[in-house]
Amino acid sequence: MTYISQDQDVTTLINVFTVAPKNQQRLLDLLAEATESVMARQPGFVSANLHRGLDGTSVANYAQWRSREDFEAMLGNREAQAHMGKAHELAEVEPRLYEVAFSHGGD
Amino acid sequence: MTYISQDQDVTTLINVFTVAPKNQQRLLDLLAEATESVMARQPGFVSANLHRGLDGTSVANYAQWRSREDFEAMLGNREAQAHMGKAHELAEVEPRLYEVAFSHGGD
Repeated sequence: MTYISQDQDVTTLINVFTVAPKNQQRLLDLLAEATESVMARQPGFVSANLHRGLDGTSVANYAQWRSREDFEAMLGNREAQAHMGKAHELAEVEPRLYEVAFSHGGD
Repeated sequence: MTYISQDQDVTTLINVFTVAPKNQQRLLDLLAEATESVMARQPGFVSANLHRGLDGTSVANYAQWRSREDFEAMLGNREAQAHMGKAHELAEVEPRLYEVAFSHGGD
């Protein structure tokens, strides 16, 4: 289970993909496969959460890494690059790194 | 505490703001104030989590609403509109609605 909290010592990646509606499910499948087979095995991986855009043209990944350095090391991994390349063929990608600044509510 | 899970019956808003670095903290303060004073009091509000982009030019809100209808009703609220208008003066805004499709990892 992924928790969002200022108290967590993680670096957060929010990656928003813009995709043709006919490719949305394919992109989700590709990213799920990449998460399980490659990303989750990289040092510093904490979690990934794929989101299906209700507009049909969006997919978002809310992911947590132990540190920015771990995330950047993953970017240099050849297997990870191959999977990211496939996603880039299907979608426009806008990855940004964050830290949690403020939280309100939740269960 | 906000948690991310396919089992949760929520609609997720991921809103990515692009802002000049000198306005990033001001935007975070404005959104935190709007969350506490207005958004959290709207029917169907579940949670909001403001994220500070490490690049200095991004802010993201990961928010949960009980339903899409509750989120859309909030958009029609005059007080909420006033707060959103202030954010739009400071930043480019790209709100999109999602459902969780796949999760891996976490604590």
